[in-house]
Amino acid sequence: MAVRCRVVLLGASGSVGKTVLELLRREREMFFLLGLSVHQNLSAVERIVAEFSPHFLSLTGLPEEKFPKHLSLRPLPICELAALDEADCVVIALPGPAALRPLLAAIGAGKRIILANKEAIVSAGSLVREALRGSHALLLPADSEHCGIFQCVAGEIGFLGVFHRPEKLRRVWLTASGGPFLDWTRERMGQATPEEALGHPNWSMGARISVDSATLANKGMEEIEAGWLYGLRPGEIDVLVHRRSLVHGFAEFSDGSLLAQVSPASMIFPLSFCLHYPFRRPNGEPPLNLSTVGDLSFCPPDRERFPCLAIAEEAFRQGRSAPCDFEVADRVAVEAFLDKKITFGDIPRLIGEVLARCAPVELLSLEAVESRQEEVQRCARRLVKNFSELGQRSRAN
Amino acid sequence: MAVRCRVVLLGASGSVGKTVLELLRREREMFFLLGLSVHQNLSAVERIVAEFSPHFLSLTGLPEEKFPKHLSLRPLPICELAALDEADCVVIALPGPAALRPLLAAIGAGKRIILANKEAIVSAGSLVREALRGSHALLLPADSEHCGIFQCVAGEIGFLGVFHRPEKLRRVWLTASGGPFLDWTRERMGQATPEEALGHPNWSMGARISVDSATLANKGMEEIEAGWLYGLRPGEIDVLVHRRSLVHGFAEFSDGSLLAQVSPASMIFPLSFCLHYPFRRPNGEPPLNLSTVGDLSFCPPDRERFPCLAIAEEAFRQGRSAPCDFEVADRVAVEAFLDKKITFGDIPRLIGEVLARCAPVELLSLEAVESRQEEVQRCARRLVKNFSELGQRSRAN
Repeated sequence: MAVRCRVVLLGASGSVGKTVLELLRREREMFFLLGLSVHQNLSAVERIVAEFSPHFLSLTGLPEEKFPKHLSLRPLPICELAALDEADCVVIALPGPAALRPLLAAIGAGKRIILANKEAIVSAGSLVREALRGSHALLLPADSEHCGIFQCVAGEIGFLGVFHRPEKLRRVWLTASGGPFLDWTRERMGQATPEEALGHPNWSMGARISVDSATLANKGMEEIEAGWLYGLRPGEIDVLVHRRSLVHGFAEFSDGSLLAQVSPASMIFPLSFCLHYPFRRPNGEPPLNLSTVGDLSFCPPDRERFPCLAIAEEAFRQGRSAPCDFEVADRVAVEAFLDKKITFGDIPRLIGEVLARCAPVELLSLEAVESRQEEVQRCARRLVKNFSELGQRSRAN
Repeated sequence: MAVRCRVVLLGASGSVGKTVLELLRREREMFFLLGLSVHQNLSAVERIVAEFSPHFLSLTGLPEEKFPKHLSLRPLPICELAALDEADCVVIALPGPAALRPLLAAIGAGKRIILANKEAIVSAGSLVREALRGSHALLLPADSEHCGIFQCVAGEIGFLGVFHRPEKLRRVWLTASGGPFLDWTRERMGQATPEEALGHPNWSMGARISVDSATLANKGMEEIEAGWLYGLRPGEIDVLVHRRSLVHGFAEFSDGSLLAQVSPASMIFPLSFCLHYPFRRPNGEPPLNLSTVGDLSFCPPDRERFPCLAIAEEAFRQGRSAPCDFEVADRVAVEAFLDKKITFGDIPRLIGEVLARCAPVELLSLEAVESRQEEVQRCARRLVKNFSELGQRSRAN
């Protein structure tokens, strides 16, 4: 039997994790699931062990005594799993800032890293850049937009990898489906329910990223991430609303010519690309039939109706801790919205208020990032309480 | 002064030639026009000499005594000009089969060749391939569609160059504006005048290529050319009607992901790309503003209303001399149409009739290609006479 690529999958029970497992299932002869992490989902672990027989498990959201001893898995802390000697490839499909420490561990261990998380780079881009400088790690962005841009510039990137600006790249355009509220008025959006916000037209995703897509906060964070990944400044990255999510990104080169990456709205495509890069292999999905594709439309986003995008872009311009602060404020706001403590329209208001109160600072260490996150989270939670009480009072009146 | 790239421009007075001169004008510090050819246009030579001070001139359509001796240019036969020791780059912007001999000469001399002519490869693809095998020449296709595909696969091509199949390439899609008759009925198209056929919506080009765009014969020949350039078989290349000519081609890779090349409908972009490859430089044209681009539509071509496309594709499948025969038959038919000897609707009928009469043969040498071209041309011209007399009789009745 040929040597298989040994994969560690962090966040195995989430939406991206499931897609990675589907790809490993389709290509058993090429990949072996060496280890995984889940937060609390033990029934997912049972199913995955029965199917893939991994060796290592990290449980990030349960106490030690809950570890499923009957499954003959070796327990490992997540950062050790991310840096495991025997692993060839580490897929980081963890939500939110939980990805940052495992990402730095995998970089430190020189792994091939497939990153399906934007918060780590948004919060701590300069730390990730520093870590990559001294490492042989290969970082591949798996978000469909960033993977699309990666494919457009892959010929220019070569061995340099991401966190360098490809010499000929002038700017990039990330596409946004526009989420479920693209045609809603600002007034109607202000009162949108969590159920409505979770109904994404093209992608099936976790709750936070679905709401972030509905506010376009997601796209704002992707702009910041693209800035780090491709060495671009604010103003060199823009967003296009493209409802059908078939074109994922455009790279404009220094001669004004553009390349666009196109594929069906399925995470199979970017994840398969990352797993095989620099090769490509059939992934079992039907490709797009361009002869029936019809119209592809593109238009600029409406930053009045989607103020989260404009706020994220302002955080990008401010730099220092502002992107990290944005991520925390957005996370707290989305959580509060999903808990029905604040309205959909409160999300940008709350984020804007948090950023106004927290003047950006330099974040020079992981500890600085994490203590900043806690501080901003406390500030945001206090504001949630104010917003929530204000909302109750206004509803009572 | 830095060393400039010394350019030989064959076909300097045509539409592509003028665009190349415009680029040389914009980048005088990088390029020097070493030599040029024109067919008969001596006033163009006067202007070009006054502006660019080239050293060599080839006159392909005038007797020796017409050579402009007062201009202190050295006369050279075109194939010597194409193989000139001092030249760094040879741009072949000659129309029709006249490009073949200079192309082979430039390949033999190991030049960087920018090819803005499809007939040479359509007629003698296997000869061009053989010539490239033993040469250090770099062949860059400047047709907007082929240059678009080249940009999509450039990261895969590397030092191999064209006439090799990039390993990961699965298929390509070439776009067609659809020409001026895209919405016409077949009946109305049958009676279209030369003036109507020359009114191309997006591109300003020579007469034959304009008519070829109106019949889609052009696109059929581009499919054949793409077959040679990227090692693809019939069925691995398809055509999409895309009216706005902003997306020039799509490359589909083995994982089902696609790259598309996008730029304004101006030959400045592909020619600038070829002149600078593997670098890219600002070319002075405003790039596409994607935020105002709006809708891009794609649909399959109607091979019933555009039978020339289907006939060219059949010639591609037949192989051997069939593509060469198609090119000759089409050239004669377009010439007869422009001379009002046959109708627009007669063009595909005449080509089909020629191909039915001339069973494909192997073409193993330049001489074989050229004698085949003469033979098919005679056959086609006889048929023009028949069609023309038939037409006169039917109009008389």
